Amino acid sequence: MKEISKLMEYRPGVRVVDATLRDGGLVNDFHFDDEFVKALYQTNLRAGVDYMEFGYKASREMFDENQFGKWKFSRDEDIRRIVGDNDTDLKISVMADVGRCDYKQDILNRADSPIDLIRVATYLNTIPGAVEMIEDAAKKGYEVSCNIMAISNAQEGDLRAALDILGQTPVEVFYIVDSFGAMYPEQIARLADLYLEMAAKYGKKVGIHAHDNQKLAFANTIEAVGDGVDWLDATYASMGRGAGNCAMELLLGFLKNPKYSVYPAIQFIDKYIGRLKEDGVVWGYDLQYLMTGLLNQHPRSAIQFTREGRRDYAEFYREVVAQD
Amino acid sequence: MKEISKLMEYRPGVRVVDATLRDGGLVNDFHFDDEFVKALYQTNLRAGVDYMEFGYKASREMFDENQFGKWKFSRDEDIRRIVGDNDTDLKISVMADVGRCDYKQDILNRADSPIDLIRVATYLNTIPGAVEMIEDAAKKGYEVSCNIMAISNAQEGDLRAALDILGQTPVEVFYIVDSFGAMYPEQIARLADLYLEMAAKYGKKVGIHAHDNQKLAFANTIEAVGDGVDWLDATYASMGRGAGNCAMELLLGFLKNPKYSVYPAIQFIDKYIGRLKEDGVVWGYDLQYLMTGLLNQHPRSAIQFTREGRRDYAEFYREVVAQD
Repeated sequence: MKEISKLMEYRPGVRVVDATLRDGGLVNDFHFDDEFVKALYQTNLRAGVDYMEFGYKASREMFDENQFGKWKFSRDEDIRRIVGDNDTDLKISVMADVGRCDYKQDILNRADSPIDLIRVATYLNTIPGAVEMIEDAAKKGYEVSCNIMAISNAQEGDLRAALDILGQTPVEVFYIVDSFGAMYPEQIARLADLYLEMAAKYGKKVGIHAHDNQKLAFANTIEAVGDGVDWLDATYASMGRGAGNCAMELLLGFLKNPKYSVYPAIQFIDKYIGRLKEDGVVWGYDLQYLMTGLLNQHPRSAIQFTREGRRDYAEFYREVVAQD
Repeated sequence: MKEISKLMEYRPGVRVVDATLRDGGLVNDFHFDDEFVKALYQTNLRAGVDYMEFGYKASREMFDENQFGKWKFSRDEDIRRIVGDNDTDLKISVMADVGRCDYKQDILNRADSPIDLIRVATYLNTIPGAVEMIEDAAKKGYEVSCNIMAISNAQEGDLRAALDILGQTPVEVFYIVDSFGAMYPEQIARLADLYLEMAAKYGKKVGIHAHDNQKLAFANTIEAVGDGVDWLDATYASMGRGAGNCAMELLLGFLKNPKYSVYPAIQFIDKYIGRLKEDGVVWGYDLQYLMTGLLNQHPRSAIQFTREGRRDYAEFYREVVAQD
């Protein structure tokens, strides 16, 4: 019986990526204190997580360092203050956005850096910029992945063309990113087929980064892993922009590789996440995110609704449904 | 492309059942005021919902009427005060538990009742009691469905035997019930195959009632409808025992039959659900429910944890994981 074996077996190629600081940082402007970050690092080590993403390598020309916590910029020396020489199996990643990163100067050679993986984030219309960044990072010695964002309203032909271009770069992982939380599992299955076909052609792997607008981030992630997607993003307590991400504690409970352990995740949430929420940091599934997800829109209007403390869901629906 | 057609088409045989009063009543002891119930009825009418479940037909010998709201007992005259003659396309259902219902006296003839559908709820070890209740309800003129609860730790052979017995009764719908919120979509697919095979043998339909312990109630419901399951339980804002149910607003947004409309659901939640939460009624996904779901346990310990206002998730995990 195929299904039982899928649940009981595990693929050793699966990689779990903790994106709590990076996607979670979008809801508190990256203001995490060092105690939190150190505890998160220890948790990832104990839980068997494969990669920990520390934040963005954002341009200090474009963004004011006084307005954001340090994980918006993720300087190597700040990472080193948490991980030392990181003599562990947990690898370190940062995200670099096309057009919002001074990668030539801010990303050092890997030999001089605690970072292992550069995750290049791009839209479909900035693929050439992504290619330059991928080549720069690979030349500096890093593992490189590429997140193509906001693809839920992209045309298959455009996606195929983008993957064909990226396939010819040294990037190692193509990421499916459901930025709007708009996709259902059967659509994920279809996209996974496309990405896996292109990945096979070029010898790449495929990853998924899901959002919880329709409470499907975990469901879409396990659909994808069942389809052959290996790299799985998750965050503790789903902390992330808007409705949040695939919950690490759900994913660790699901994966059958005995190297993964859910209990450290529960301990971390117990001790650190409630405190964040008490401090007024807000994320997670709510009706306004359902609406933008359902309508396949960027969640920015829903995030604004949340920030303003609005509760008039019906009025908000009338606003977002009227957008042309 | 099979997947696109599955999303764009709809099966006219799909039936949406609003279980808000019944499963939601388990978290507030059925203390809904008439304004709430009337608004819910109007919402279901406008949203195109097919059945509205008013509550339980619980035994007044076993349960104290002073301790519970009236929808624990769902007297016909109370229903009639909400729906009048219910001269609409929305059908009315109640649930009757084997061993906790004086069905012979409390369930009247359908000709004298506003109720259309009796939903008999049973465990695997009380199937003969369910058969008696099904036959009684059918003889009185009702549509009848049967929920076999807590099947996530049942053996397939026992389930098959139960469905073989139920298949020979006048019951019209076999319900897959994931009482513990323990099942992943691929397990739902496997169970749906079994139920649909037995349903085809006896000319029955299949339904699903999911719980959100692992944030999979909606995902499991759309997996099931994709597999051929027609009867879909949902509740507004997921209101229901413990982690709650498949959210009506997610389901109505997903279903493509133009008779269904999500906007009335949003209006209802906007106006009535926030108020319930402000009154201190608590339900919905949280770590304690993840744990009992993951461990395939009844959620009663997690519900107790919630009632006591506990937040010591790590200690709770140590408690539940130690159970033999």
